[in-house]
Amino acid sequence: MTAAVIPGSVHIIGAGLLGTSVGLALRRAGVDVTLEDSNAEHLRTAVDKGAGRIADVGEIPVLVVVAVPPRRTGDVIAEATRRFPDVAVTDVASIKTVVLADAKAADADLARVVGGHPMAGRESSGPEGARADLLDDRIWVITPTSEVDVDAVRMVHRLITACGAYPVEMSPEEHDRAVALVSHLPQVLSSTLAAQLVSGRPEDVRIAGQGLRDMTRIAGSNIPMWSDIIAGNAGPIAEALGALVADLHSTQAALADLERSPSDPDALDRMEGLLAQGGRGRELIPGKHGAAAASYAVVTVMIEDKPGRLGRLFLIAGDAGVNLEDVRIEHVLGRPSGLVELFVQPADVEVLIAAFRGQGIDVRA
Amino acid sequence: MTAAVIPGSVHIIGAGLLGTSVGLALRRAGVDVTLEDSNAEHLRTAVDKGAGRIADVGEIPVLVVVAVPPRRTGDVIAEATRRFPDVAVTDVASIKTVVLADAKAADADLARVVGGHPMAGRESSGPEGARADLLDDRIWVITPTSEVDVDAVRMVHRLITACGAYPVEMSPEEHDRAVALVSHLPQVLSSTLAAQLVSGRPEDVRIAGQGLRDMTRIAGSNIPMWSDIIAGNAGPIAEALGALVADLHSTQAALADLERSPSDPDALDRMEGLLAQGGRGRELIPGKHGAAAASYAVVTVMIEDKPGRLGRLFLIAGDAGVNLEDVRIEHVLGRPSGLVELFVQPADVEVLIAAFRGQGIDVRA
Repeated sequence: MTAAVIPGSVHIIGAGLLGTSVGLALRRAGVDVTLEDSNAEHLRTAVDKGAGRIADVGEIPVLVVVAVPPRRTGDVIAEATRRFPDVAVTDVASIKTVVLADAKAADADLARVVGGHPMAGRESSGPEGARADLLDDRIWVITPTSEVDVDAVRMVHRLITACGAYPVEMSPEEHDRAVALVSHLPQVLSSTLAAQLVSGRPEDVRIAGQGLRDMTRIAGSNIPMWSDIIAGNAGPIAEALGALVADLHSTQAALADLERSPSDPDALDRMEGLLAQGGRGRELIPGKHGAAAASYAVVTVMIEDKPGRLGRLFLIAGDAGVNLEDVRIEHVLGRPSGLVELFVQPADVEVLIAAFRGQGIDVRA
Repeated sequence: MTAAVIPGSVHIIGAGLLGTSVGLALRRAGVDVTLEDSNAEHLRTAVDKGAGRIADVGEIPVLVVVAVPPRRTGDVIAEATRRFPDVAVTDVASIKTVVLADAKAADADLARVVGGHPMAGRESSGPEGARADLLDDRIWVITPTSEVDVDAVRMVHRLITACGAYPVEMSPEEHDRAVALVSHLPQVLSSTLAAQLVSGRPEDVRIAGQGLRDMTRIAGSNIPMWSDIIAGNAGPIAEALGALVADLHSTQAALADLERSPSDPDALDRMEGLLAQGGRGRELIPGKHGAAAASYAVVTVMIEDKPGRLGRLFLIAGDAGVNLEDVRIEHVLGRPSGLVELFVQPADVEVLIAAFRGQGIDVRA
């Protein structure tokens, strides 16, 4: 990738984690980058990391990237369209409708504003954690409106490509509904499920399996950041949560009937119906390479919990020409060994089992 | 392990997945096993697999294991205490209070009945999928009541040890409340979250990340089995779900306030409070070896999606003497490469990064 990808300098406003990472990625691609931040220390750190330089007085970039917190993004976009007439402006906020409305309310020139959201979550913040490769191979949603100039959209496509990411276009409303469903609702649920453990007894979590672990993993995320994101997308999240709570109310009604009569055929039917709908939803989630997640087969092996034991498994799989689609290690509390689940294409199962057995690996299924 | 572990034969009633697996595990340990099943084909399959033999007329075992579906378990336990006076009886049903009440209602001799629940979930059923090692290293909860004979409890401990599992004692009510919280509630939530995707737009799931994947994984489980389990533990699940739904109602109230005014400080405070409680709950879940899950550090690397690339990572980690606590592969839709997150002890991070970089591996954090 050469500097010719972007014919001029890119000006980044906000030298936090994302802004600095975009700067590092653009510099890696040979693009000229200028930086500004109201926090002088952040700015110095970002410049020292090589994410860009301070702009000369009166210098005009070909693209402005606004990378400030969501609740300030709209105002900063509007100001940027005034400071830099005819220059395309994009942002990286994880919510889009509110930002666009804020920009409009602040009299931004919307013909040059293209909303963006790189799907690269990290739990840290600030320029210290910035990396040139943070956006590599990530989806970067852009939300051009019908009134935006096509050249501004093209410039943002160039930015995304230069950063090593892949553009996906949606309307701001589509984006916000989509992230409410696939990102914000899971976050709310994970946190709420994990919160139930606080009032539980310590003994209860002793017997917790992988299901609970998987479902509470993201409950450990950055809380002020999530609180802001949720506040800025409250409407779509409320809608998605409302539909989910309505289903939980149906589950509660079925449970009340089953508590009175565990063999109530109508209540059992309703409970099965609710679970079956979940099975159908699960099938809709694309796996790696777009294959349905359900299409993988699982090979389970038992390994000793010592350095190199996992490595041996994967080396054998590689030698057998079998590609591993996913790996899951089951944690057995207090045991010096572990079950490992290897997800592979169904056609590879027998090859992999034979290869493992040939090397004395303890294959379980 | 020798046959002396259990001084006599173990009689297993129900040659399904669990019953046959228990038989295979006991035979592996040299224990004499007799089998019965009302389904002649299941019985033949289990005997053919080597899980045990048909009992002689009038033969008396030292322990009976009831491994029939939960809703029949209580009756079969009661019948077993009548058929085999003075013999200890246990079961493997994943719910315990209802089973005990059923056994009592059917006039079981409760002094010899010790409830059990091996924590070994599998999505299949029937003797075909049975394995001698299904229970290896698993927690096996037992729920002895205060009225049970201590020798019966000792016999069940021997059974569990012979099967390669580890006993954890709880009361039946504690067990049912614990599994409602750590197993049944997550199942209900995972299914309900996944169900929301059915009414979503196909484009929405395109941008789904690892969070949604983790939270809907168990939504693909065996639905009739789960419906039965939920029906048999409706009370404790309703209680756990009620507390969770109350929290979701608080979230809905905060969202409604935030929709009206995204900077409402009181609503923001409440939202942060709900998320923070989730963070505290997450910390309570023990990781591998009882270490808190949050105590691991993450090293992220990018690999090409080709056979052997994962293996190389693990081989290098092993050579560097670094033990991997967990592995997570991020699936980037449609991309021919992947980010891999390796969870290690914090003290191992620098060693691992240096080892990877020395071998030209693309380390991201």
